[in-house]
Amino acid sequence: MTLKLGMVGGGEGAFIGATHRWASRLDGEWTLVAGALSSDPERAKRSAATLGIAPDRAYEDFGAMALAEAAREDGIDAVAIVTPNHMHFAPAVAFLQAGIHVICDKPLTTSLAEAEELARLVKDTGLVFALTHNYAGYPMVRQAKAMVAEGALGAIRVVNVEYAQDWLSTPLEETGQKQAAWRTDPARSGPAGAVGDIGTHAYQLASFITGLPWEVTAAQVHTFVPGRRLDDNAFVWMAAGDSRGLLWCSQVAPGNENNLRIRVYGEKGGLEWHQEEPNVLWYTPLGEPKRMLTRAGAGAGPAAARVSRIPSGHPEGYLEGFANIYVEAARAIRAHKAGEPVPAEVTFPTVKDGVAGVRFIESVIRLGKR
Amino acid sequence: MTLKLGMVGGGEGAFIGATHRWASRLDGEWTLVAGALSSDPERAKRSAATLGIAPDRAYEDFGAMALAEAAREDGIDAVAIVTPNHMHFAPAVAFLQAGIHVICDKPLTTSLAEAEELARLVKDTGLVFALTHNYAGYPMVRQAKAMVAEGALGAIRVVNVEYAQDWLSTPLEETGQKQAAWRTDPARSGPAGAVGDIGTHAYQLASFITGLPWEVTAAQVHTFVPGRRLDDNAFVWMAAGDSRGLLWCSQVAPGNENNLRIRVYGEKGGLEWHQEEPNVLWYTPLGEPKRMLTRAGAGAGPAAARVSRIPSGHPEGYLEGFANIYVEAARAIRAHKAGEPVPAEVTFPTVKDGVAGVRFIESVIRLGKR
Amino acid sequence: MTLKLGMVGGGEGAFIGATHRWASRLDGEWTLVAGALSSDPERAKRSAATLGIAPDRAYEDFGAMALAEAAREDGIDAVAIVTPNHMHFAPAVAFLQAGIHVICDKPLTTSLAEAEELARLVKDTGLVFALTHNYAGYPMVRQAKAMVAEGALGAIRVVNVEYAQDWLSTPLEETGQKQAAWRTDPARSGPAGAVGDIGTHAYQLASFITGLPWEVTAAQVHTFVPGRRLDDNAFVWMAAGDSRGLLWCSQVAPGNENNLRIRVYGEKGGLEWHQEEPNVLWYTPLGEPKRMLTRAGAGAGPAAARVSRIPSGHPEGYLEGFANIYVEAARAIRAHKAGEPVPAEVTFPTVKDGVAGVRFIESVIRLGKR
Amino acid sequence: MTLKLGMVGGGEGAFIGATHRWASRLDGEWTLVAGALSSDPERAKRSAATLGIAPDRAYEDFGAMALAEAAREDGIDAVAIVTPNHMHFAPAVAFLQAGIHVICDKPLTTSLAEAEELARLVKDTGLVFALTHNYAGYPMVRQAKAMVAEGALGAIRVVNVEYAQDWLSTPLEETGQKQAAWRTDPARSGPAGAVGDIGTHAYQLASFITGLPWEVTAAQVHTFVPGRRLDDNAFVWMAAGDSRGLLWCSQVAPGNENNLRIRVYGEKGGLEWHQEEPNVLWYTPLGEPKRMLTRAGAGAGPAAARVSRIPSGHPEGYLEGFANIYVEAARAIRAHKAGEPVPAEVTFPTVKDGVAGVRFIESVIRLGKR
Repeated sequence: MTLKLGMVGGGEGAFIGATHRWASRLDGEWTLVAGALSSDPERAKRSAATLGIAPDRAYEDFGAMALAEAAREDGIDAVAIVTPNHMHFAPAVAFLQAGIHVICDKPLTTSLAEAEELARLVKDTGLVFALTHNYAGYPMVRQAKAMVAEGALGAIRVVNVEYAQDWLSTPLEETGQKQAAWRTDPARSGPAGAVGDIGTHAYQLASFITGLPWEVTAAQVHTFVPGRRLDDNAFVWMAAGDSRGLLWCSQVAPGNENNLRIRVYGEKGGLEWHQEEPNVLWYTPLGEPKRMLTRAGAGAGPAAARVSRIPSGHPEGYLEGFANIYVEAARAIRAHKAGEPVPAEVTFPTVKDGVAGVRFIESVIRLGKR
Repeated sequence: MTLKLGMVGGGEGAFIGATHRWASRLDGEWTLVAGALSSDPERAKRSAATLGIAPDRAYEDFGAMALAEAAREDGIDAVAIVTPNHMHFAPAVAFLQAGIHVICDKPLTTSLAEAEELARLVKDTGLVFALTHNYAGYPMVRQAKAMVAEGALGAIRVVNVEYAQDWLSTPLEETGQKQAAWRTDPARSGPAGAVGDIGTHAYQLASFITGLPWEVTAAQVHTFVPGRRLDDNAFVWMAAGDSRGLLWCSQVAPGNENNLRIRVYGEKGGLEWHQEEPNVLWYTPLGEPKRMLTRAGAGAGPAAARVSRIPSGHPEGYLEGFANIYVEAARAIRAHKAGEPVPAEVTFPTVKDGVAGVRFIESVIRLGKR
Repeated sequence: MTLKLGMVGGGEGAFIGATHRWASRLDGEWTLVAGALSSDPERAKRSAATLGIAPDRAYEDFGAMALAEAAREDGIDAVAIVTPNHMHFAPAVAFLQAGIHVICDKPLTTSLAEAEELARLVKDTGLVFALTHNYAGYPMVRQAKAMVAEGALGAIRVVNVEYAQDWLSTPLEETGQKQAAWRTDPARSGPAGAVGDIGTHAYQLASFITGLPWEVTAAQVHTFVPGRRLDDNAFVWMAAGDSRGLLWCSQVAPGNENNLRIRVYGEKGGLEWHQEEPNVLWYTPLGEPKRMLTRAGAGAGPAAARVSRIPSGHPEGYLEGFANIYVEAARAIRAHKAGEPVPAEVTFPTVKDGVAGVRFIESVIRLGKR
Repeated sequence: MTLKLGMVGGGEGAFIGATHRWASRLDGEWTLVAGALSSDPERAKRSAATLGIAPDRAYEDFGAMALAEAAREDGIDAVAIVTPNHMHFAPAVAFLQAGIHVICDKPLTTSLAEAEELARLVKDTGLVFALTHNYAGYPMVRQAKAMVAEGALGAIRVVNVEYAQDWLSTPLEETGQKQAAWRTDPARSGPAGAVGDIGTHAYQLASFITGLPWEVTAAQVHTFVPGRRLDDNAFVWMAAGDSRGLLWCSQVAPGNENNLRIRVYGEKGGLEWHQEEPNVLWYTPLGEPKRMLTRAGAGAGPAAARVSRIPSGHPEGYLEGFANIYVEAARAIRAHKAGEPVPAEVTFPTVKDGVAGVRFIESVIRLGKR
């Protein structure tokens, strides 16, 4: 039986809502059966109809939805929260309090206080909380994490992670473009622009792969586009023990579409991974030729294999990586329903990553705005 | 409402059946409700249960399935035929005769006579017949086709298409590996090995992009692995008017995972596309710098956009391209159900591509086995 | 002491003459001291002056030069013949008969009869004859040859070599462009255009790396640009024992600058090399991840090292590879002068490669022009 | 007539001396006629003999050489100083004071005071002083500089420059490896390790291309290899007006051979250049597809053309770029000898770049060692 999914946000015209739906559908683990898809009741209703949601489960309000779904015998197993940043906290609280598992977009919240409150609530309820840092779902990111954990690189010396885009090189928000508008609006995006939108992905990726507790040691935050109210570029330095990290995020770098790239260097070897060519992980054991490890190819191990679908050379992409978060969350929720522990190999970003991400944002903004 | 899909073949352990299911699920256009998933009744039943197919729609036999589903009010809209090559023809005939649309894996049949018979039956019934030459579903392949059609390259001079793999470099079929076993068995694969399995994809891709009626003018067919009963490598030359083509397919080329690559050269420019980096199309207008066109990026037009889901830089892969065949077939079937003509922009390989592919196979084998 | 070089051809406006001069100068092994640089006496004199050649060694005629230089005590050690194809044979004969070593551009001659006559003359005189198939000078081509010889690939199954350019996509010869004019003129280029100019390089590269005696088994020769008198594209199939080869050369493929590329597949592994990224050789041992071998890097052995100059990551290019032919020829000539055998590791294309190249041209033209 | 070159340092076993010799020879502009090649008299003599330097011009001491060469009628036109860093200053002073032009390796000196003194001396003498920041000699770096100057990118927002190597990932200096030994020895290398050796190249490249006066605003300097006495990794932030820069240099990053890479982003477009693929410059006009500009190809302008030798697709490499510094210096020196102004297009790093580089080193070390 598929699990039953509800959705908050993601009505007509939303990008990330559609992405969550593709991701949830791909593997046949989830069926979307309920939603509070828009704060505009008409749009909510229309969107629900388009998506095949029954009229009585097309809610105008996420609070009402949480209560109603919790009360139904065939109520949703989990809710996907795909609203702008400022609207993650309240729905998350509502559904957790209603006893419903949560899959939430990132960044977790717009303040650390809220983030920590959510973390407590998750702990108290014992519910599953998955945060869609989807890049952690890519098989070769899993492979990289496994290799670092197994010591293939030895002690980590330097991490260089960057996330560059170019779509905000002009004041796109002034044209009314919806995605640009909320991401550059402090009221909806929170204290950060690029740092929150993509910097947190980069930070989470570095943390996920290395397993290190990176602290921000210095930051510069820039706003290059005149009139923009939030940052569109940032430089960050990080440290974790003797390891040092370099993070750059930018939404004003022409020629970069969605260029998330990480390089990890240790005393015994190096790794490189690039989101735009996600099926490949470059591995250099120190003193040996560079090797191209491919998803499901000869050099990929079980950590990559368990989240791969098709043979190597048949590229899996962004949606497959995103879907892996949904598959892993489903595994955790099924275990929860069965009263069993979540299997050790099930891996997905949780509320803890969310708290770390919000702490990252606050550190960068505090240190960078001098 | 989603369309209702049945499946013939694709039980436990099958690769291509799972692929069809991922592809059909991704966009929420299809629901799998019936199947004759295996010729082994026990396996068929087990597979159906795993896939959430109701027991009364888990058939032991495709013929019974065609009749039963045609008789149901809630019968399937289309059947996906995902069996080995020798088992495409009979089910296709059965479902077409039962008035059910067909989505069939390639190559169409194991003989040209059967292929032509199917083509007649499709014509006579007026039903939709989609052939899953999935590479034609990639957005940048659509973009290439559109550019050629619009004259961006001028008259085509040379096409160089190749499809190289390495997974059959050893006699894998002798180990009992299921995929290798049937592909190298004339009784199930038909008269060709690599030529049928991947050569037909390369041929279809060249035909699809250029719109030219390529004829095979010379061929060499090789079997490098001792004891293998079908070809594992072939060289082919083709002609269409003044255009000349070069096709190479191989399953014994170490270092090639699924290296389908096409280059098209005309009097005014050149194009290159590579399946393992499918979101990119390289375009060189003669005398100008090479340009990297990206799916959903600045250089991609409407032909790519209508089969793209997410922004550029967020890679779509093999399953998304495959899913586009299912989406397009769904559009055609919905039009058929509504008694309307299929919209002009709806594009997918049909039984005609299937006949051309079988003719290609027969030409290559006839010319190559001297 | 540097060796003394003379030059026939290569006056003002010539491309390949300048290339030979850069190549001869780079390593300090050669000094250009004499020349018959042009068939136009004024241009010959001017060119010589520009190049610092003493007036008494600026000849109007290669025959006179051969005699005069042979008679001088400080006469040249070798002559570089850098004229169009039809003017290789006569100078080569003249200098060999005068007892002077020869470094000659390719293809060797415009007919097989001449090529074989030259081969006999080289054998009879015992002089050094180097043919500047310069791509055999690249370190990673040497590495590939060594790996094949050592059995890293096992028995060779398939070679795919291609040499694509785009500079003759239009009738450039009609504009008076000098390089285009002679290359498309049968009187100066011989029976072949692209086949002789670049096809021979591709053929020699395949022969050099694999060590196999490739025979042309089929060919198609095309002239796409209207009015052109020689071929500008060709398809060739080759065989050597159980190995099969695919060669494509084109000068009408927009987007290709000097795209010479070879892939070699054996039962145990595969190699790929691309002239435009010459410091890298891709090696896949069957069943293992692809490895990036780099010139002077961890994966490169002595065959590459002895013709490398600088550390890996510091790219060596076309001129360095060309210079390696000059260095190797110098080693052979020094051995000859010392009455010693040429050291076994000294490797450069000789008159034998020249004969094979002319035989290749004649086979392709004969088989292709049906 | 070629110019006459002397050399200080560069005897047997030296890397950079050989590089200077290849670079000086390539274009036939220079002849090496004198040298103080080693501080060890025997080695100096042997090295000179090997290089064809007359015994009377093989000096034991650079001071004696400066005086003697200045006194000869056929004295050297310029000296190349290719010693370790601490031995740049004294020879430079000696030759400048003797009226001889200088070509000096980088970094200029081991202290800012010395650097500024040299700058004054160059100014006072009016002699040519070329600093071999050789990466400024690459044609596509020239192209990038020209494009920025012409406003193709608009106002510069962000520069990201990195120079990563891996050869010092282990304590190589403890094995006696000569290149590692002096580079990690404060007495010979000066106050910085990686920062001086490669960081200065990265800094100069960013300055050269953008034309901006980058100031270091923050730095972190790391030594990862235990026991090493100088830095082997550094993070640097820079500013110039409203532009911001990111510089990373490392010699402990496994998988990086000589990975110097720069990305320049402006309000109207972006550029990317990578030293290991130096014939290509990637250019994205904002909102248009990325373009691959190639040396001597359609997108390259006169700034690249005047330092290119051979057609596009025929790769020029490190030595050609290095040679361009020698060619440009020769042009300046010939102008000086003729009493004419140096032509405006002649471009090479000078003592000013040297001062800026030493100031960069001192800033990074001061800010980074907290």
